[in-house]
Amino acid sequence: MSIDLRRSPEMRDDTARTEAFSDGVFAIAITLLVLDIKVPHDLPENTSLLRALLNQWPIYMAFLTSFATIGIMWLNHHRMFRYIRRVDHWFLVLNGLLLLGVTFVPFPTSLAAEYVLRPDRTVAVLIYTGTFTLIALAFNVMWWYAAHNHRLLDENADRRWVRSITGRYRFGPLLYFTATLLALVNIWVSLFVNAALAVLFLLPYNGPPASPTSAS
Amino acid sequence: MSIDLRRSPEMRDDTARTEAFSDGVFAIAITLLVLDIKVPHDLPENTSLLRALLNQWPIYMAFLTSFATIGIMWLNHHRMFRYIRRVDHWFLVLNGLLLLGVTFVPFPTSLAAEYVLRPDRTVAVLIYTGTFTLIALAFNVMWWYAAHNHRLLDENADRRWVRSITGRYRFGPLLYFTATLLALVNIWVSLFVNAALAVLFLLPYNGPPASPTSAS
Amino acid sequence: MSIDLRRSPEMRDDTARTEAFSDGVFAIAITLLVLDIKVPHDLPENTSLLRALLNQWPIYMAFLTSFATIGIMWLNHHRMFRYIRRVDHWFLVLNGLLLLGVTFVPFPTSLAAEYVLRPDRTVAVLIYTGTFTLIALAFNVMWWYAAHNHRLLDENADRRWVRSITGRYRFGPLLYFTATLLALVNIWVSLFVNAALAVLFLLPYNGPPASPTSAS
Amino acid sequence: MSIDLRRSPEMRDDTARTEAFSDGVFAIAITLLVLDIKVPHDLPENTSLLRALLNQWPIYMAFLTSFATIGIMWLNHHRMFRYIRRVDHWFLVLNGLLLLGVTFVPFPTSLAAEYVLRPDRTVAVLIYTGTFTLIALAFNVMWWYAAHNHRLLDENADRRWVRSITGRYRFGPLLYFTATLLALVNIWVSLFVNAALAVLFLLPYNGPPASPTSAS
Repeated sequence: MSIDLRRSPEMRDDTARTEAFSDGVFAIAITLLVLDIKVPHDLPENTSLLRALLNQWPIYMAFLTSFATIGIMWLNHHRMFRYIRRVDHWFLVLNGLLLLGVTFVPFPTSLAAEYVLRPDRTVAVLIYTGTFTLIALAFNVMWWYAAHNHRLLDENADRRWVRSITGRYRFGPLLYFTATLLALVNIWVSLFVNAALAVLFLLPYNGPPASPTSAS
Repeated sequence: MSIDLRRSPEMRDDTARTEAFSDGVFAIAITLLVLDIKVPHDLPENTSLLRALLNQWPIYMAFLTSFATIGIMWLNHHRMFRYIRRVDHWFLVLNGLLLLGVTFVPFPTSLAAEYVLRPDRTVAVLIYTGTFTLIALAFNVMWWYAAHNHRLLDENADRRWVRSITGRYRFGPLLYFTATLLALVNIWVSLFVNAALAVLFLLPYNGPPASPTSAS
Repeated sequence: MSIDLRRSPEMRDDTARTEAFSDGVFAIAITLLVLDIKVPHDLPENTSLLRALLNQWPIYMAFLTSFATIGIMWLNHHRMFRYIRRVDHWFLVLNGLLLLGVTFVPFPTSLAAEYVLRPDRTVAVLIYTGTFTLIALAFNVMWWYAAHNHRLLDENADRRWVRSITGRYRFGPLLYFTATLLALVNIWVSLFVNAALAVLFLLPYNGPPASPTSAS
Repeated sequence: MSIDLRRSPEMRDDTARTEAFSDGVFAIAITLLVLDIKVPHDLPENTSLLRALLNQWPIYMAFLTSFATIGIMWLNHHRMFRYIRRVDHWFLVLNGLLLLGVTFVPFPTSLAAEYVLRPDRTVAVLIYTGTFTLIALAFNVMWWYAAHNHRLLDENADRRWVRSITGRYRFGPLLYFTATLLALVNIWVSLFVNAALAVLFLLPYNGPPASPTSAS
C-alpha cells in the first residue's frame, strides 16, 4: 500500500501547525506591503495625477523587490519543510527569528522608498538590503540546525541531496551581504543587485526533487 | 473502497500549502479593503455626519466592487485547484504573480475612490480597471500553464471539460480589458461595466462539475 | 471501524477550503479592530495620559462589543459547518455576503466610537447596530439556504435538531434589529442592548450536540 | 497498526478549527506590530536619518519584547493543544479572552514606546506590562479549565505530567505581575524584567514530552 506511515497524522503534527502559523505570517507580511503605497492627496499645482504617481516610482520598485523576496522566502520555507519530519524547541525559536525578519520587511521597504532620492539614502539602503541579509542568514541557520546529523530530517532523505542543498543555500547570505556592502559604493548598484537576486532565485533549479521520498 | 489514492496525503502536499498560503493572501487583501473607508473627522459647518458619509459614496462603490472581484478570484482559484494534482516551480511563480495583483488591489481601489470626482479621474479609473485586467490575465496564464497537455491536472479529468473551461476563462481578461478601454471614453460606463462583470461572474454556471472525478 | 466515510478527504474538500478562507477573514477582521484604538499624541495641557486614555472610553467599549460580536459570529459559523457536508455556488455567495459584513465591522466601530459623544451620535449608532443586524441576517439566510430540505446538510442530521436550530437562530436578527431601532429613542439603551446580546450569545445552550453524528 | 484512532478526523475536528483560527489571530497580531515602527518623515535640521532612527530606540525594544511575548504565547498555545482532545463552550470563550489580550498587544506596545521618555511613563509601562499579566492569566485559566479532572485532555495523558505543567505555568502570571508592580518603583527595571521573562521562557524545558502519547 502506498500510504506513507512516516507522514501519519501523529508525526505530521510536529510540523503542520508550525507551517500553518508561518504561512500566516508570510501571507500577512507580503500583503501589508501595499499599505506603503500611498495615494497622493494634495497634488501640487501643474502636477497631474499621472506625474505624481510616476514620481513615486521608488516605492513601486521597493514594493516589487520586497514582494518577490518574501515570496521566495516562503517558497524556500515550503521546500525546507518537505525534508523535515520533526520540530524541536530550538528549531521553533530559529523559525521565530526568521519570522521576526519577515514581519519587519515593511518598515525598511518604506524607509528605502522614502529616502532613496534624499541625502540620507545610503543609510536607508543599507538597512533595506541588510534586512534581507539577516533573513537569508536566519534561513540558513534553520537549515543547518535541522540538517546537522540529519537531526530533524526524514530518515530516508538522501545525504548527498542534503549536502547539495546545504551548499546551495549558503550562497544566499553571501550574495545579500555583497549587495549590502555595495550600498557603501553606490546605492543603485546595490538595489539593482538586490532585485536581480530575486529574479535569480526565481529561476528553477535542477536539483533535488521537491519530495525527499522520490529521491530514495 | 472509496478512498481516492490519487489524493493521498503525499500527493496533496504538492498543492495543500500553496492553497493555504494563497487563501491567507486572499483573506488579508479582502479584509484590508475596509481600511480605505475613513471616518470623516472634521465635519465642515452645516454638514451633518450623514451627509458627510453619503458624500463618500465613491469609496463604498469601490469597496464593494473590489470585494466582489477579489471574492470571485478566490472562488475561481479554489475551483482551479480542484483539477490540479501537482504544482511545479513555474506554476508557483505564476501563482505569485496572481497574488501580487491581488495584494495590490487596495491601492487602486483607494486611488479610484479619491479621484473619481476630480479632474484626474480618467487616469485613476484606468489604473483601477487595468489592475483587474492584469489579475484576470494572470489567472488565465496559470490555467493555460496547468492545463497544457494536462501538465498539472488530475489524469482522470475529462479533456472536453478542460477545453470548455479554457474557452470560458478566456473571456475574463477580454471583458476586463474592454472595461478598461471604456474608461478612455467615459469613466462611469467603465466603472459600471466593471461592477456588472462582478455580478455576471457571481451567476452560477451549468458547466463542468466542481470535482473532476465525478466527470469521469 | 469508526472512520466516518461521509467525512472522507474527498467530501470534506467541499467545505474545508471555504472554512479556511472564512477563518482567515474572521481572524483578520477581529485583529484589525485594535487599529481603531489610537495612542493620544498631543496631550492638552493639564491633562495626564491616564485622563486622556480614560476619555477614550467609547472606543474601548466599541472595541470590546465588536470583538465579542465577531467572535460569536465565528463560533456560530464554526458550529454551522459541523452540520454541513457540501457547499454549492449560492451558498458560497451567501458566505461571501456574511464575510462582507464581517470585514466591514472595523469601520462602524470606529464611527460609533468617534461620534458617540457628539451631536451626530444617532446616525453613528444606527449604522453600528445596523451592521450587526445585517450580519445576523446574512447568517440566517445562509443557514436557511443550507437547511432547506436538508440541501447541504449531513444526511444523518436529525431533522428535529435542525428545526430547533432554525428556530433559535431566527431570534438573532430580530434582537439586533430591536437594538438598532432603540437608537432612535436613546443611543445608550441601544448600545447597552447590543453589548448585552453579545453576553447573552456567549452563554452556553443546552441544545443539539456540536456534532450531528452523535445526535443520531 | 500505528494509526491513533483517538486522533481520527472526527475527533480532531473539535480542536482543529479552533487552532486554525487562533493561529490566524496570533499570526496577524504579531505581524501588525511592525506598523508601530514609523519612518521618520521630517527630519529636524542637523539630524541625520541614522540619528532619527536611533532616537526611536524605545519602539524597537517594545517591538522586540512584544514579538517575543506573542511568539511564546503561540508556542505555549501550540503545546497546550497537544494535550487537548476536545473543546467545549466555555473553553472556546476562554480562548476568546486570550485572543482578546493578544490582539490588544499592538496598542500598549505603541503606548509604551511613545511615552517611555515622557513624564507619563509610569502609566504607559503599567498598561504595557499589565497587558502581559492579563494574557498570562488568561492562558492559565484556560489550562486550569482544560486540565481540571482531565476535563478536555487526552485520557492517556499522564496525570503527573499534567500536574507538573500546571505547577510550572502558574509562575507566568506571578512573574508578569511582579514586573508590572516594579513599574511603580522604576519603569526601566520593570521593562528589563519583562524582556528577561521573554528570554527565560524561550529557554527549553526538560519536562513532559511535547506529545502526551509518548509519555504513556
